[in-house]
Parts: sequence; C-alpha cells; structure tokens
Amino acid sequence: MADGTSTPRTRVRRMPKRGGYDRATIDPILDEALIAHLGFVVDGQPYVIPTLHARIGDSVYVHGSAASRTMKHLAQGFPACLTVTLVDGVVLARSIFNHSMNYRSVVVLGQAEPITERKEKLAALVAFSERLLPGRWDEVREPTAKELKATSILRLPLTEASAKVRSGPPGDDEPDYAIPVWAGVIPTALVQGTPLPDPKLAFDLAAPRWDGLPKKVK
Amino acid sequence: MADGTSTPRTRVRRMPKRGGYDRATIDPILDEALIAHLGFVVDGQPYVIPTLHARIGDSVYVHGSAASRTMKHLAQGFPACLTVTLVDGVVLARSIFNHSMNYRSVVVLGQAEPITERKEKLAALVAFSERLLPGRWDEVREPTAKELKATSILRLPLTEASAKVRSGPPGDDEPDYAIPVWAGVIPTALVQGTPLPDPKLAFDLAAPRWDGLPKKVK
Repeated sequence: MADGTSTPRTRVRRMPKRGGYDRATIDPILDEALIAHLGFVVDGQPYVIPTLHARIGDSVYVHGSAASRTMKHLAQGFPACLTVTLVDGVVLARSIFNHSMNYRSVVVLGQAEPITERKEKLAALVAFSERLLPGRWDEVREPTAKELKATSILRLPLTEASAKVRSGPPGDDEPDYAIPVWAGVIPTALVQGTPLPDPKLAFDLAAPRWDGLPKKVK
Repeated sequence: MADGTSTPRTRVRRMPKRGGYDRATIDPILDEALIAHLGFVVDGQPYVIPTLHARIGDSVYVHGSAASRTMKHLAQGFPACLTVTLVDGVVLARSIFNHSMNYRSVVVLGQAEPITERKEKLAALVAFSERLLPGRWDEVREPTAKELKATSILRLPLTEASAKVRSGPPGDDEPDYAIPVWAGVIPTALVQGTPLPDPKLAFDLAAPRWDGLPKKVK
C-alpha cells in the first residue's frame, strides 16, 4: 500500500533521500500534473504513451477509445506503469556534473481494471473534466450511450506508488564555489495562455477562467 | 528507418491522420521537449521514468548515474521506449466527448547502446548542455575522469520512431454547434520564469538568458 512504505519495486534507489511513499506526497503531484505517461509491454517491447489521467480517492483513472489497442491490452490486466512528472526548473551548478533538474514525479505500478458500470464510468469522466475545467460538465452536452460505449476507462489502484522530488539550489563540490559563474535555478512551469475561441463559435461568449488548469501566464 | 514510413510497431492506429514518420516532423519535437519519459521492462513489469535527452543527428542520448539500475539494465540492450510530449493546449468542445488535447509527441522504440568512448561521451554531454544552455559548457568546470566514469550514457538510434500531433480547434458533431457554450483552445506551454540565484552565489553576476530553454514567461 502507498502508505509511507516502499516495495522492492518502488523503492527509490538513486538519491533515496528524494523518495517518498506517502499519499500526502504522491496525491498532490498526481493531481497537479496535466498529463501522465502510461507504460505497457507487448511482445517484450515497452511502449510509453501520453494520456490524461484523473485521481479519485485511492485510484487513478485513464481513458481512451474502446477501439484503442492500448486500452484493449491494458484492460486484460497486464502490468502497467503510470508516471507523471512536473518539471520545476533547470539547476545550474558550477560544474557540468552537478547540473540537475528540479522536478516532482510519481510512478504508479499495477494492473489496470476496466470500468464497465455506467455510474462509475460517468464518475470518472466527470473527474477528468472537473479537475481541469470545474463547472464545464454542466454546460456542455453529456455523453450519449453510444459515446460512453466508445470510451474505455481503466482504473489503476494506488497500491504501489512512489514519488521522487528534487528541489532547491544546486549542490556543488566545495572547491567549485570559487568559480565565478552564475549558479542557481531557472524555474519552469506549464502555464496557460490566452484562450483561442473556436472560429466556429457563433455566440458572443467570453472564455471562462479555469483555475484547475496550469497556472496562468504571469 | 524513420524515413517517412511506419513499422507495424510504430504505426499510429488511433487517429492515423495524426501520425507522422518523417524526421522533419520527429526531430523538432524531440529537440523542443525539455524531458523525455523512458520505458523499460524488468521481470515483465514496465517502468517509466523521466529523464533528460539530447538528439545528435540520427540518435537520441540519455544519461544517468553509472550506478543506476535503469542505466545498467538498458545498457544490456533490452528493448526501450523513449517518449516525449509537448502539451500545447486543452481543447474545449460543445460535448464532453469531443473535448481533447493539442499535443505533439514522439515515440522512439529500440535498443540502447552504452557509450564508452571518452570522446563520444563528452560530445553527448556537450549536447545535453548546449541544447538547453548554449555557451554554458565553456563557463563551468568540465567533468573530471572520475565524474565521466560515474556517468553512464546510452544511445538510442532513431530507426523506429513515430510522431503524433493534434492541433487546431475542437471538432464537434454538427448539431452541437448550436449549444451556446464557449468553445476553443486554451493554449498551454512549458515556460521559464525568473532565475533564482543560488544563495551561495558569491559573485555579483546577472543570470544569462538562455533561448534554448522553454519560452520565457510572457
């Protein structure tokens, strides 16, 4: 259980002090990340694909077309890995070797379970929508039965998960602090820009603001 | 070869019109992405970890600690998958079903090859540095022999790769255009913020500007 302890498969071995196994560390990273990268194996070959995700309680959900090879494969319960990464900055040290990145990442291992029950499918879709665009669900057309059928939703329990975090300034070797070069962190963040109305928008409506999306460009 | 044709493993099956197999499409996406997600398999379990990457010509390089389990595993030539994703926007449609994301992603499949020769190792490290921070390599301390030995560098040839791109406004079902709700795209981008000097910076130096980093916050 992602209850503060690691498993042999999730334990952070490189830089163990950067590892975290408690949900208080894991959940906010999962919730802030706009997308996830989902890993699976077919014929011994790993595949990694970007996908949206949404956490509800102790599970993280992904969705896709019911016709998708990836979704069909994962629905059979093959091992999966869902990883999210927030890139927080580029860390500039006095030596090339000590250059680094600031980041917060979470790795979830497990088997995905297909969601077939209508109510749980809808709840997951609401979660995808509401976490990014609160209120949007009530304004737009809900999925038809046919659309729901064409959408595959998988649930991955947060039973085996770990976080890895690096933050703060560079850590240089002591003699290197004498090198007269700028050192520090250049922060990075995924931010939202100015909304672009659909050219086919036939109504005089302002784009609402969504705080669930990445931070507004300052 | 990533020469404009797909292989059975790289062919984009969902939304095939979004697929691209030519280097003119693939290379700029690889080069713009700040980080990659690297997939590999241990005991049937896929793992996906974030990592820096750099392309030189027909190969993409990743690096890590020589003591890292991931690097040791991949150096043995097991199948790998390197994926980069640029998140370009959230696409708001009139129906939940037609909501989408704008993105550009690249998937590279193959076997990684460890780089042992000093000259090629250095060239790869220069590429990691220069693509993000042009000029930085010449200002900071170069790697010592010991540091080079502690750094593992792997090369993945761009022989089997594909791109997938979605751009532009939402595509709604014809009757849904009558729904009086805002629709369009909220652009997103990874941008750099104001540099944070290392508290231990003992010199009065301004942070240089790096155009290789994500776009400056506007």
